[in-house]
Amino acid sequence: MNTIYGMKSSGNCYKVQLLLEILAGPYRWVEVNSAAGETRTPEYLAKNPNGKVPLLETEEGKYLPESNAILCYLASDTNLFPKDKWLQANILQWLFFEQYSHEPYVAVARFIKKYLPEDHARHADLPRLLERGYQALAVMEKHLAGQEYLVESGFSIADIALFAYTHDAAIGGFDLSRYPHLQNWLQRVRLQTGFVAQEN
Amino acid sequence: MNTIYGMKSSGNCYKVQLLLEILAGPYRWVEVNSAAGETRTPEYLAKNPNGKVPLLETEEGKYLPESNAILCYLASDTNLFPKDKWLQANILQWLFFEQYSHEPYVAVARFIKKYLPEDHARHADLPRLLERGYQALAVMEKHLAGQEYLVESGFSIADIALFAYTHDAAIGGFDLSRYPHLQNWLQRVRLQTGFVAQEN
Repeated sequence: MNTIYGMKSSGNCYKVQLLLEILAGPYRWVEVNSAAGETRTPEYLAKNPNGKVPLLETEEGKYLPESNAILCYLASDTNLFPKDKWLQANILQWLFFEQYSHEPYVAVARFIKKYLPEDHARHADLPRLLERGYQALAVMEKHLAGQEYLVESGFSIADIALFAYTHDAAIGGFDLSRYPHLQNWLQRVRLQTGFVAQEN
Repeated sequence: MNTIYGMKSSGNCYKVQLLLEILAGPYRWVEVNSAAGETRTPEYLAKNPNGKVPLLETEEGKYLPESNAILCYLASDTNLFPKDKWLQANILQWLFFEQYSHEPYVAVARFIKKYLPEDHARHADLPRLLERGYQALAVMEKHLAGQEYLVESGFSIADIALFAYTHDAAIGGFDLSRYPHLQNWLQRVRLQTGFVAQEN
């Protein structure tokens, strides 16, 4: 059975939880509190030298970090990550978009507003994070005006990856009412069989 | 024939150039100067709504953004991106690591030092960028102490992706002499048939 080391309140970890619940297969979840330094212990760094969650441990005891690589691996024999070369490239495009153009702004704004005291210096970053985050959300809105899911073949791990930090972007100060197509897409993801809401 | 819209002085674009030169197939390169606003024109945004380079246009006129998704697509029938599920997951892990834990620090430090005047406010970011960039380089050094390439099967698109912003990290202020295994790995990449140095 696969084991996931993760922190359910982290969107990057929730992605993996959401996929596993939708796939409805057995898995073991080990909650690791990165905020309390549990990803920086010698034992954890031996498993993942980059000291981050989530981390997959396979039944054979092999380790795989990086949330979106874990999604690809776990979904690789399912219709959530189809074999077609062009579809795979398009799914990967959204996964890289998520980690490069979306998460560093939408997730970091959420982190600052949710976890840091109001007088913390990083609140000064919020205007820039909101500007860049809105750019990413606008790219999604424009794309979702033309299709139901991020990739034309249907619901995929691209939707799972982007859902994770979009569904509660309001916590970071983003006004999602500007984006009706994106809101409809969020609802379509919530209606997937096996869907589970994120724990706080 | 595939067309690449890119700016050769950008590491994200150089990745794609390097792969195409190593694959030795025909391609067309359209130089796009993002620093001069050429990725924000209506014409370019119609091709890539995220307004970034590189961008692949296939022979059939389909578009694919995101440098690492382009690498996966172009290498998908070659031994630079083997079909084995676990190897693919490991290559993807390094590609996501590159975009999430390496590029935002190593490449951004290079950008600030190379392109922004010395009195520009963003120079204040450099200490944090160096700290995080060194963390990423240390993860690579530790891994490369045990194997010749990032993935055990041999040279792959993971090496191409990580080479792009590591080979000239010194421009951003990183001292690579701390990392002998990483330096040997850089040299192994330079010795690949078809290797081409990055244009400035």
